[in-house]
Amino acid sequence: MVKVAIVGATGVVGETIERVLRERNVPVGELGRFASRARENVEAASPERLSAFDVVFFASGEDASEAYAPALLERGAFVIDNSSTYRMTSGVPLVIPEVNAGDVRAEHRLFPVANCTAIILCTALAPVRDVAGLVRVRVSTYQAASGAGRAGLEELLAGERALANGEAEPASAVFPAALARNVIPQIGSFDASGYTGEERKVAEETRKMLGLPALRVSATTVRVPVRTAHSEAVWFETERDTSVEALADAFERAPGVVFHRDGIITPREVEGTDLVHVGRLREEEPGDTRRFVLWCVGDQLRKGAATNAVQILELLLSRGFVGR
Amino acid sequence: MVKVAIVGATGVVGETIERVLRERNVPVGELGRFASRARENVEAASPERLSAFDVVFFASGEDASEAYAPALLERGAFVIDNSSTYRMTSGVPLVIPEVNAGDVRAEHRLFPVANCTAIILCTALAPVRDVAGLVRVRVSTYQAASGAGRAGLEELLAGERALANGEAEPASAVFPAALARNVIPQIGSFDASGYTGEERKVAEETRKMLGLPALRVSATTVRVPVRTAHSEAVWFETERDTSVEALADAFERAPGVVFHRDGIITPREVEGTDLVHVGRLREEEPGDTRRFVLWCVGDQLRKGAATNAVQILELLLSRGFVGR
Repeated sequence: MVKVAIVGATGVVGETIERVLRERNVPVGELGRFASRARENVEAASPERLSAFDVVFFASGEDASEAYAPALLERGAFVIDNSSTYRMTSGVPLVIPEVNAGDVRAEHRLFPVANCTAIILCTALAPVRDVAGLVRVRVSTYQAASGAGRAGLEELLAGERALANGEAEPASAVFPAALARNVIPQIGSFDASGYTGEERKVAEETRKMLGLPALRVSATTVRVPVRTAHSEAVWFETERDTSVEALADAFERAPGVVFHRDGIITPREVEGTDLVHVGRLREEEPGDTRRFVLWCVGDQLRKGAATNAVQILELLLSRGFVGR
Repeated sequence: MVKVAIVGATGVVGETIERVLRERNVPVGELGRFASRARENVEAASPERLSAFDVVFFASGEDASEAYAPALLERGAFVIDNSSTYRMTSGVPLVIPEVNAGDVRAEHRLFPVANCTAIILCTALAPVRDVAGLVRVRVSTYQAASGAGRAGLEELLAGERALANGEAEPASAVFPAALARNVIPQIGSFDASGYTGEERKVAEETRKMLGLPALRVSATTVRVPVRTAHSEAVWFETERDTSVEALADAFERAPGVVFHRDGIITPREVEGTDLVHVGRLREEEPGDTRRFVLWCVGDQLRKGAATNAVQILELLLSRGFVGR
């Protein structure tokens, strides 16, 4: 039995981590719930209070991870961090258990959880990499409101209610435009290249998680009025000749993937579930053996964040690194 | 002054054609409103009644165009047809006035109006073709409910109201899944290649309108819970080396295009307007002089359908082909 703390326990990711720990019967001896700042009903995190736990999940922003993680690591605790703070730090593994569990070694203590869009993309593309290699990815996304946290989800729902009932719509605070009845082609801020922060994360983290530093990745990330599941339209180029049939077989065998040979899968159907769904697999053009297209969907709060974080703990438990 | 009829006058496209004719002060001497089938309050179309008009707009399905267009063309009337019936017919021009007005000759009588997604895409890509050539396009779409007509729009709004008020959601009849709080990666039916009817139309009609029969086009078309404006995330490869700066200049000069050098444009802002908005222009990777990315948005009822149809009539009037 391990002692587990969640910092950011009242956020949508923190709540989902707690739910997933319970659903998956992770042997948690004690569960500490902390807010990153003082709040009603929830104790604020502090170095002293966190020092009693073996494993600390961070499910709030970069600030809390930066403030508390170094001391925890110093004394040998395990940190599983949903913020972006340490994802690209050299020597720190960025793990999707179905994809790159081999990156985890006994001395590792710090486990960032990657960007939700990148996790869903890499879970879908890992079987392609294994079967035929992967040289280039283009992805446009359909990202749910919950990716911006509870405030994002509430902003969407308040806007929907106002529009549906003919009332004045609240001003946008979380998103750069109203999200209800809209799509917004900006997540994060722009750099000089014209890409956004979210698009850079998808590219960098995908290269790291797939272990393909030369992989070319170009993303257009777009917010859509959906609650919690992200969808992605993906074009990819393989290193070697392959076929829809060979790729379909690989998806059917892939851990964490549900493959849809026919028909479609939509984000509403995937909300609240833990797997990545892949469908609409086809050649880019008839007879092309290196270029293909697919559609993938996953719940960003679960596989894109909380479930992946809990799976990392399960991996550490199964290897005996935690809980000895 | 010309005598103009609209078949499908009570549909969302038919109504928009009437509104756009009025807004643009097209010299219409008589306007006949017909339904494709008998309906309350609107006379049904018939060969006899349509024979009194110089120009007939079809804004209903394929059936009405097939039933009435041949006799109208036979007697020399002009047909502007929003259905897909004749779009790919050899010798029939498929016209976006800003893009390929030169395809129109004095003997032409039949003018199909292309697929809305293809019109928006070609208006955005024509300046690229002119500046640097165009060899390949990949596009994923964010298509509004009105693309499925009034019934589609009403299905979305009824679903939104039910969800916002915690009531039972009506069953999906127009779309293959609930559209409210969802995105649906299927428009039209699948063929053996795995592409949908909508995706094939986008590819074929784009090649025809841009006059590039060898252009490679791969589309993933997706319905989103937006009312009337379509958005598209586009990757394109040019034939010759070019730059963001040269392309930006071309977009700024292009007729029918509003170019956004910075920031974003969303479909809600574009609803009810006649231009195609292009933004988020960037190199696919830093230093790539042949591969670029952009975002484009246009109202599918207006530039994607009604406005383009009315612009074709304006072109025929300005050349003196109609109304002499």
